[in-house]
Amino acid sequence: MRQIRTDLAMESQQAAGSMPGVHVKQWAESGVTVTEVSIEDLKASVRLGKPMGKYITLECPQVRSHDVNARIAMSNLLAEELARLIPEGTGEIMVIGLGNRNVTPDALGPMAVDKTLVTRHIFRELPDHVEEGMQSVCAIAPGVLGVTGLETMETVTGLVERIHPRAIIVVDSLAARASARVASTVQLSDSGIQPGSGVGNLRRAITEESLGVPVIAVGVPMVVYAATIVRDALEEISSEYSSEEALDSITDHVLEGSMGDMIVTPREVDSLVEEAAQIVAMGINRALHAGLSDAQIREMMG
Amino acid sequence: MRQIRTDLAMESQQAAGSMPGVHVKQWAESGVTVTEVSIEDLKASVRLGKPMGKYITLECPQVRSHDVNARIAMSNLLAEELARLIPEGTGEIMVIGLGNRNVTPDALGPMAVDKTLVTRHIFRELPDHVEEGMQSVCAIAPGVLGVTGLETMETVTGLVERIHPRAIIVVDSLAARASARVASTVQLSDSGIQPGSGVGNLRRAITEESLGVPVIAVGVPMVVYAATIVRDALEEISSEYSSEEALDSITDHVLEGSMGDMIVTPREVDSLVEEAAQIVAMGINRALHAGLSDAQIREMMG
Amino acid sequence: MRQIRTDLAMESQQAAGSMPGVHVKQWAESGVTVTEVSIEDLKASVRLGKPMGKYITLECPQVRSHDVNARIAMSNLLAEELARLIPEGTGEIMVIGLGNRNVTPDALGPMAVDKTLVTRHIFRELPDHVEEGMQSVCAIAPGVLGVTGLETMETVTGLVERIHPRAIIVVDSLAARASARVASTVQLSDSGIQPGSGVGNLRRAITEESLGVPVIAVGVPMVVYAATIVRDALEEISSEYSSEEALDSITDHVLEGSMGDMIVTPREVDSLVEEAAQIVAMGINRALHAGLSDAQIREMMG
Amino acid sequence: MRQIRTDLAMESQQAAGSMPGVHVKQWAESGVTVTEVSIEDLKASVRLGKPMGKYITLECPQVRSHDVNARIAMSNLLAEELARLIPEGTGEIMVIGLGNRNVTPDALGPMAVDKTLVTRHIFRELPDHVEEGMQSVCAIAPGVLGVTGLETMETVTGLVERIHPRAIIVVDSLAARASARVASTVQLSDSGIQPGSGVGNLRRAITEESLGVPVIAVGVPMVVYAATIVRDALEEISSEYSSEEALDSITDHVLEGSMGDMIVTPREVDSLVEEAAQIVAMGINRALHAGLSDAQIREMMG
Repeated sequence: MRQIRTDLAMESQQAAGSMPGVHVKQWAESGVTVTEVSIEDLKASVRLGKPMGKYITLECPQVRSHDVNARIAMSNLLAEELARLIPEGTGEIMVIGLGNRNVTPDALGPMAVDKTLVTRHIFRELPDHVEEGMQSVCAIAPGVLGVTGLETMETVTGLVERIHPRAIIVVDSLAARASARVASTVQLSDSGIQPGSGVGNLRRAITEESLGVPVIAVGVPMVVYAATIVRDALEEISSEYSSEEALDSITDHVLEGSMGDMIVTPREVDSLVEEAAQIVAMGINRALHAGLSDAQIREMMG
Repeated sequence: MRQIRTDLAMESQQAAGSMPGVHVKQWAESGVTVTEVSIEDLKASVRLGKPMGKYITLECPQVRSHDVNARIAMSNLLAEELARLIPEGTGEIMVIGLGNRNVTPDALGPMAVDKTLVTRHIFRELPDHVEEGMQSVCAIAPGVLGVTGLETMETVTGLVERIHPRAIIVVDSLAARASARVASTVQLSDSGIQPGSGVGNLRRAITEESLGVPVIAVGVPMVVYAATIVRDALEEISSEYSSEEALDSITDHVLEGSMGDMIVTPREVDSLVEEAAQIVAMGINRALHAGLSDAQIREMMG
Repeated sequence: MRQIRTDLAMESQQAAGSMPGVHVKQWAESGVTVTEVSIEDLKASVRLGKPMGKYITLECPQVRSHDVNARIAMSNLLAEELARLIPEGTGEIMVIGLGNRNVTPDALGPMAVDKTLVTRHIFRELPDHVEEGMQSVCAIAPGVLGVTGLETMETVTGLVERIHPRAIIVVDSLAARASARVASTVQLSDSGIQPGSGVGNLRRAITEESLGVPVIAVGVPMVVYAATIVRDALEEISSEYSSEEALDSITDHVLEGSMGDMIVTPREVDSLVEEAAQIVAMGINRALHAGLSDAQIREMMG
Repeated sequence: MRQIRTDLAMESQQAAGSMPGVHVKQWAESGVTVTEVSIEDLKASVRLGKPMGKYITLECPQVRSHDVNARIAMSNLLAEELARLIPEGTGEIMVIGLGNRNVTPDALGPMAVDKTLVTRHIFRELPDHVEEGMQSVCAIAPGVLGVTGLETMETVTGLVERIHPRAIIVVDSLAARASARVASTVQLSDSGIQPGSGVGNLRRAITEESLGVPVIAVGVPMVVYAATIVRDALEEISSEYSSEEALDSITDHVLEGSMGDMIVTPREVDSLVEEAAQIVAMGINRALHAGLSDAQIREMMG
């Protein structure tokens, strides 16, 4: 069975229906729908096409219409969930922004890194300026293979060996199945980033297994694959296309040629990716520097 | 009959088939396919949903894969066709770049204006610096209604009354039906720009009729509407959906909700719109300043 | 006497000392120093090289170090002073952002326009969405002569004739004499914009006299001229150079060659101009839409 | 003696005059003045404040006025000199772009990296696409300490250990003493990058000594320090200020306060840094891929 192309575990789970080894909880908080999908055994992991682990999805359609309170609610919840996933301790936190800053829907990671309050150099060089409730944070946007000639893991591994962070937060643009979730959903996960995720790029896994450090992934879907909306349309209209094979073959036929590299995205993706990066960075900043007010964070960022 | 949503007259014509009042010519030149569609009576205009006039489409798939020679061939042909459409004389030429520079696929117009060699101030203030084969050119990107609160025509009309240009070239992003034509096609037309064209924005007509000056439109498709690819997929798979009504209703059903404002675009639209603006501006610069070499043009642009 | 090169009336006045026809008031409010210079007769206007009118300068060094409260205080005071200068009534307000958006220190005007809440199209097309305490606002960044081939006044005059705004707010980058005032000072004035102001560009006057509508100028110094700091250094070190003529001639000598087009600016001018545009736009938005909260304004801006 | 603040060895040498251990050659080629300064012993190195090594400076004032042929001449000469400095062999070349991409005059390095043709992933994954006369190249812009919390050397060392490049090319913005050299001069050097170079940022040395790999530095001055022009003005006008101590103390006095972080730069630095990055990247691309034409390089870059 070919899985539908989505980076959201909750969408994979909803498409597959309930199965052993998967637990789902859902609740609402401050106008945000929170869905927690726990994939607890390998069989379920294979069926869903997602590594084992916990996936927390925050959904709030109002974010897409620029609702300020919705954005604050999202980043507050993100901060809470992040703080829960990051292991206690005093070591450094490394934030990695994946993606290509010159490809708008893929720029979430680099843009979130730009908005992340970085403090490691203060801890090391100006320890007197460190305040209560701050943590040592560094951040890097290593770029994409086609632009650097370097695998993300080549850049990251050396840094991890040198810096020994206590945990890694890796931020990336995702693809959703449902267009309504684009730019209105944040997914957190303790399973890291797997090859083949993201907007059509293969990279090597960035996970606790590969790096020896807990890796928390934070992503926001910025696109839907063109293939997905065609396939969903076919599926919806006729039981004739209910078999996976038929669907796949027709979708492939319809999309052959230049359609393959097309993405479906909101017209205003430039401003939406900017706002999503803001939400993610605010969530990270609050989770990591609980002792600083928003005003202090903005001031320190310059 | 609801027309398919495309700003390319050649696509409307191909979908409708041959009809009285429409003449089509096609030829190849320097690796570029040139299609000329002339809509010569009102009935054909209504059936095709395009104003009467001549539409010249330049197609070259290699442009999409960054082929330098293909880009040069496209801009040379564009320069030739533009030079043919611009009335002879010595008055000024005004270039208008429509669209929103902060919405990537809609930024073609403002970006082309940025790359257009503007000379009107040299003609007026430094006439000694005017060389043989230069024309007086001004250029403006008036912005979009949602950002300025001003209709394009409100800004343009005052300028036209003051400046009395000999002709207007108006540049805009278009929507195509076929995704293969995105960023690989240029359409020129002597019919100006009509309300409802462009990437989903209504504006008042910018035409010879409304402005009293010949208006030549130059556009490059940067998107396909999501509705278009779904509808095309349905149409292709089954005669069951061959009636327009059935197709429309199913498409509407499939796309209801947030799908409506989604666009389909290549992942690398940021660089493609930049290259398309370069092709358009080079075509304009060569057409208007036949006496200047490319190197001179680049130097004068700073 | 050659006046020192500054666009701040308070700096001209301080250099010249007290004179008949000029009144100066200064007070502090919310950590901001407010200086009001009124130039009340022609002779004083000529001596100071500034048109007659009222100039209000808001100074707050903390803005330069990204202090969030300082920025809020500045934009609140700006809103109050602006509200005082704008004539009562119900007609439209037009905001004009001067300068070149592709030249960082000159981009204040276009950037402030991007951040201004524009509502004229809502008043005209969606009157039901107009809330208490909103005004009809349009905004345009007409670009600079070298890029458009058009004088700002050519673009503006046509629009003013068509739209008949009740008042115009014109935003521009300024040059200061004292580098400490760069990016930490806002000047408002009821005298409009005169030729020769701004970062080295001549333009025709945008004033009540030329347009028949009150014109309020808002500017933030983003640069100091290189000549200014050299001249100030010379002046400071020796009475030998106390005569204007000697100073001018030595300054000219020192600066001859490529120095003439150099500007002095903070290293981080990219982020400072962004923040200054934010302060100016917040001031304008609050002054014009007193009935909207900050959150509502941000939401409506998208 | 406090050395004048310049990153150009030829300016340090000219200020100091001839001395033992320093050899200077100068010639003209294709309209470009080439100056080679060889610092051959430690004493001279200390006096000039520059590490021992060979410094080649290419100067061409026409580049500043956007002369296309001048740019081509500069990048051709840069390619030749680079090819001479890079050790023969078949191993990989790593290009490192220093500086902050969000601070315009400091963005040369990241911008040059964006324009560098990267091929390492082709050599590794698509070896059939490798053509005669291509080399394996990777490139990274590691960001600055204040934004990443990471020393450049922390990021680079891990990569060098993993990738074992044959040589490193490091690109950075420089500060000149003479404003005429800003954006019109390229300096190459086999001595790497030393702490305290660049636009006011300390970083650890990136040299053959520290990395075990030949390091070739390429830089373009984008700024002059404000202190420099004041000091030069003082020096020029009076023998009274001929002693270093007097000059230093007066300069310090004049500049005290906010002047310290000010830079002197051409108004149009945004476009000049873009063009300088283009010259540097073209020079690198030609030096490393002698078998590819310009058109092939542009096409492969997308």
